[in-house]
Amino acid sequence: MDFLGTKIVVRYAETDQMGVAHHSVYPIWYEAARTEYIKAFGMSYSQMEQMGIMLPLVELSSRYIRPAHYEDELKVTVSVRLLTRVKIEFYYEVWNQKGELINTGTTLHAWTDLNLKPMNLQKKFPEIYALLLEAQEKGREKA
Amino acid sequence: MDFLGTKIVVRYAETDQMGVAHHSVYPIWYEAARTEYIKAFGMSYSQMEQMGIMLPLVELSSRYIRPAHYEDELKVTVSVRLLTRVKIEFYYEVWNQKGELINTGTTLHAWTDLNLKPMNLQKKFPEIYALLLEAQEKGREKA
Amino acid sequence: MDFLGTKIVVRYAETDQMGVAHHSVYPIWYEAARTEYIKAFGMSYSQMEQMGIMLPLVELSSRYIRPAHYEDELKVTVSVRLLTRVKIEFYYEVWNQKGELINTGTTLHAWTDLNLKPMNLQKKFPEIYALLLEAQEKGREKA
Amino acid sequence: MDFLGTKIVVRYAETDQMGVAHHSVYPIWYEAARTEYIKAFGMSYSQMEQMGIMLPLVELSSRYIRPAHYEDELKVTVSVRLLTRVKIEFYYEVWNQKGELINTGTTLHAWTDLNLKPMNLQKKFPEIYALLLEAQEKGREKA
Repeated sequence: MDFLGTKIVVRYAETDQMGVAHHSVYPIWYEAARTEYIKAFGMSYSQMEQMGIMLPLVELSSRYIRPAHYEDELKVTVSVRLLTRVKIEFYYEVWNQKGELINTGTTLHAWTDLNLKPMNLQKKFPEIYALLLEAQEKGREKA
Repeated sequence: MDFLGTKIVVRYAETDQMGVAHHSVYPIWYEAARTEYIKAFGMSYSQMEQMGIMLPLVELSSRYIRPAHYEDELKVTVSVRLLTRVKIEFYYEVWNQKGELINTGTTLHAWTDLNLKPMNLQKKFPEIYALLLEAQEKGREKA
Repeated sequence: MDFLGTKIVVRYAETDQMGVAHHSVYPIWYEAARTEYIKAFGMSYSQMEQMGIMLPLVELSSRYIRPAHYEDELKVTVSVRLLTRVKIEFYYEVWNQKGELINTGTTLHAWTDLNLKPMNLQKKFPEIYALLLEAQEKGREKA
Repeated sequence: MDFLGTKIVVRYAETDQMGVAHHSVYPIWYEAARTEYIKAFGMSYSQMEQMGIMLPLVELSSRYIRPAHYEDELKVTVSVRLLTRVKIEFYYEVWNQKGELINTGTTLHAWTDLNLKPMNLQKKFPEIYALLLEAQEKGREKA
């Protein structure tokens, strides 16, 4: 597993009349990066949903350090910051093409079934839980 | 049934760096107006989906006459322009607070079941078909 | 000044394949409510921008308590939680038509000029600062 | 100049409760592809805006042939279908990873200055006009 971040090119529609990427777009970029991050494990979030695992958002936080502009080429990195049987927290960094950190964020998710009822991931899907635990460990070693 | 149009206030997030509402937002406004239009019949599109009726888009067209700006108070009108057993076409007009027509558009939809397979609405849901036929007639009388 | 909250009807485009309003939409609803809140003072955010005041986001947080669904009629309330010469923090609550609190959030903004350079609001626009200070006080009395 | 299309991975936020990419997202994909298409000429749309050229949308059309799903890897191709001194029309095709054509569309744009006033591109920016004329020719040869 080797995830070096997702490349995002800022879309025109993502800018606002301030001339910068609108703040509501960053959670969507986090999500795109999270999708690729999970894919880097050999799973896909689509498959997880088909298996009956949902991952609705419980908490979101974001810090806006520098603006992003149309056509900027950004890199969004992801790591697992917290993993328990009932929830998982991801941490994100958004970097621009000049090597500047422009945004950091977190998303906290609950493991649920298809009816959005809370679920014990370790009990229901021990292999996936083990895989994510491993990812978290690797993230720690790097840090 | 008396539908006078849906009020839309242009959101900051809907603007782009040109300082106007981005063109991709108009289909979303059409949809908001379509939702209220259907509600004006005493149904709701949510109920239609629960009954097993889907209305995916097949064709979209839009003409941009004047720009819309942040905080503009727009009115979106809807009428049924075409109704057959397998499809329905809506026509939209977007007016601003100065009484100027700023955009017109059409959306063509297919009647389908929950698996997005085409469906004969008149056969499966004759009451709804009759209701829409009546709406189309009323729209014609006005015009 | 009497602001009772902004009414939001959940748009189809705002839902995702989980069948609920996507989490990235809530910051946009906060913004729509903030726009109306400022308007309730007899100003408008458009005018503020024309005067040379920008209010870019510095921090965002959001807690998702219950999901929102298509066609739900939500109410978003706003209050000023913190006001200094260089920044302002708003607090939001999102309520559904059943009277359930479904989301809370905060947005922290910097006062800047049109080039997004920090600005001392009290020095540059003392009347607006005074107005907001008053709003904050009123909010406190209610709480 | 060699433009083979823009790769788009369908984002979760782009899906709706029908379980497919929402129709309002396609114009945004067209725009992302248009951005890369222009870049393939050695210009960038950002630079064009800095030179004083705007390209607001005048007409949009889209045909939805097959749905797109979350995580689908799409390719969006672009060509110039019409070029005059005052306007330009682009044509798009969206293909999925199975090699199926899922959508086609057109966008008609006016050449304007920064105040959105119509502009004769050939007169004001003859080099850019020549470049686009060449692109249109190459597109024709391929077809």
